[in-house]
Amino acid sequence: MEDETRRIFAVQFHPEVAHTPLGAQVIRNFLFAVCGCRGDWSPEAVIEEQISRIREHLGNAGRVVCGLSGGVDSTVAAALVHRAVGDRQTCIFVDNGLLREGEFESTLALVGQTMKLNILGVRAGPAFLEALRGVSDPEQKRKRIGKVFIDVFEREAKRLGGVEYLVQGTLYPDVIESVSVRGPSAVIKSHHNVGGLPEKMNLRLIEPLRELFKDEVRLIGRELGVPEEILGRHPFPGPGLAVRILGDVTEEKISLLQAADRILDEELRLAELYNSVWQAFPVLLPVSTVGVMGDERTYERVVAIRAVTSVDGMTADWARLPQDLLARISARLVSEIRGVNRVVYDISSKPPATIEWE
Amino acid sequence: MEDETRRIFAVQFHPEVAHTPLGAQVIRNFLFAVCGCRGDWSPEAVIEEQISRIREHLGNAGRVVCGLSGGVDSTVAAALVHRAVGDRQTCIFVDNGLLREGEFESTLALVGQTMKLNILGVRAGPAFLEALRGVSDPEQKRKRIGKVFIDVFEREAKRLGGVEYLVQGTLYPDVIESVSVRGPSAVIKSHHNVGGLPEKMNLRLIEPLRELFKDEVRLIGRELGVPEEILGRHPFPGPGLAVRILGDVTEEKISLLQAADRILDEELRLAELYNSVWQAFPVLLPVSTVGVMGDERTYERVVAIRAVTSVDGMTADWARLPQDLLARISARLVSEIRGVNRVVYDISSKPPATIEWE
Repeated sequence: MEDETRRIFAVQFHPEVAHTPLGAQVIRNFLFAVCGCRGDWSPEAVIEEQISRIREHLGNAGRVVCGLSGGVDSTVAAALVHRAVGDRQTCIFVDNGLLREGEFESTLALVGQTMKLNILGVRAGPAFLEALRGVSDPEQKRKRIGKVFIDVFEREAKRLGGVEYLVQGTLYPDVIESVSVRGPSAVIKSHHNVGGLPEKMNLRLIEPLRELFKDEVRLIGRELGVPEEILGRHPFPGPGLAVRILGDVTEEKISLLQAADRILDEELRLAELYNSVWQAFPVLLPVSTVGVMGDERTYERVVAIRAVTSVDGMTADWARLPQDLLARISARLVSEIRGVNRVVYDISSKPPATIEWE
Repeated sequence: MEDETRRIFAVQFHPEVAHTPLGAQVIRNFLFAVCGCRGDWSPEAVIEEQISRIREHLGNAGRVVCGLSGGVDSTVAAALVHRAVGDRQTCIFVDNGLLREGEFESTLALVGQTMKLNILGVRAGPAFLEALRGVSDPEQKRKRIGKVFIDVFEREAKRLGGVEYLVQGTLYPDVIESVSVRGPSAVIKSHHNVGGLPEKMNLRLIEPLRELFKDEVRLIGRELGVPEEILGRHPFPGPGLAVRILGDVTEEKISLLQAADRILDEELRLAELYNSVWQAFPVLLPVSTVGVMGDERTYERVVAIRAVTSVDGMTADWARLPQDLLARISARLVSEIRGVNRVVYDISSKPPATIEWE
């Protein structure tokens, strides 16, 4: 479709998603051949531009806190803001009790040793668990977690004194899927980074990666000296394991899921497939099924394994993991984790499914 | 372990399950070399023996009804009893509203045309649905379905007059897993054929296949002239789709599952894999997950696909179906069935999982 006089041109499909054949070529032709754009995007240019913007925005006064999660996005955002304002930024890494096994300790150690960030680790697991007690609705879970996060940040900011801004590693896909800022996309989910935050909070947001995709963020991170171990990490949702436990969240379910996550992670790395999947994680279903152990009947839980390949997280295909690897993962999950007797593998693409289940 | 004086010899593992390496050899050595047994089992011998037993049991008086389900077991049982007492047997095929799509009509036609059985088709879907309304517990489902079945049989038996016996296609694995008749196996599930029946009923049971395994039943069926189309059918549980709908059973869920079952069946047959799996079926989970359709968020159901290979149903492994077939099945389920946005594939073995989920 086109309107020559107003210079508006449109197509009625999604050339921008990775799974559209030749979609990138359509966009390339339009931008370079038709509009005369130049393809001069570079990590260095983005970093320079963002640093100026951040400095301009923050001026000379005031401190900044950054919500660090140990994932790619927040670490790169922190590194960028650090480049702009140095130690005026304090990174707060909250143990919300919903992290992977050992993640809090290992991330603090890794980031502390390799980057010169100013980091504060805060253990707040019980407050999150309390806020989640009896809550099954996924939107409610995200909102309650977002609220406790902000409570923690505000409390820590108050103690630091003079803090006006909160840095978050929000990416463009989070923005597209959670608020309609740049177009008519309906709300797909409240991302913790975006829609999960309370309407009223005392800190103003800085989101330097808000217009970038994950692959671009990795390039910028590499340029900023973020360790490969962090750059190569699979995405992990802000609300953590809470959105991978369908139904209500309890400590027992968290431990079970952490154990499942550790086994899956180990097996993927052993098979040297960790880096070829975009994301891989277990989901605990609120479903019990019949099984048999020795000569006894069991009635235990089901764990779903989700592993996808993707370029940008906007579309994804289920990973064609080798069947003997799936068999080994399944056997380990049921034999090593008490309370699990059945394992399923998610064979859905995004769309119509999403990567995370909630 | 052994007790020479009492001539008792034991092993502390399961040589009889198909997945034990050389298990069959252990048993063969013991039976033939040690005990001096002869391996002269034959379908003809079993048929002759059962026919004599049935005739002896039933005498000359009285009529018999047989609960026909269209599956291998009940059809072979019916054929056997027919050989023994002819038209004194009436086969009752009940449409419980929980069958596969079109199964009632096609089975009546097939059995009617190829075998000389005396068949009565009874439509009783609404009574079963009514008994299941709001019931989520799997044991309760089985018991209620068993009760309505018996109500129907008794009513029909009364109309026929002079009926004392009910023929059922119970196999040995059903017996092992549901009642401890021959050993200390705990109850694994109430099979519809066995434990699902009410304690008090006016008909006495005849179960001519009660000491046989499925592969033996197929051999006997072939000898009795049961059509290959029935002998090759995947096992189907007595309580039908009710135990493949986790949570409560509604008409809408039954339709959804019937559609999923049809698609899975079509794809397996197209791929010429129907005969190489022991059983393949969809399960509707009581779980909704987030998805995206166009630019809208969806919150829809998950279907699990279960497909296993097995020799006797006692142990089973998940079928290593080709990944492109799984992808096609998954794509068809989400695009053709309204209300489904995610598909998982069961990668659990039996044990510790069972084949059916409930």
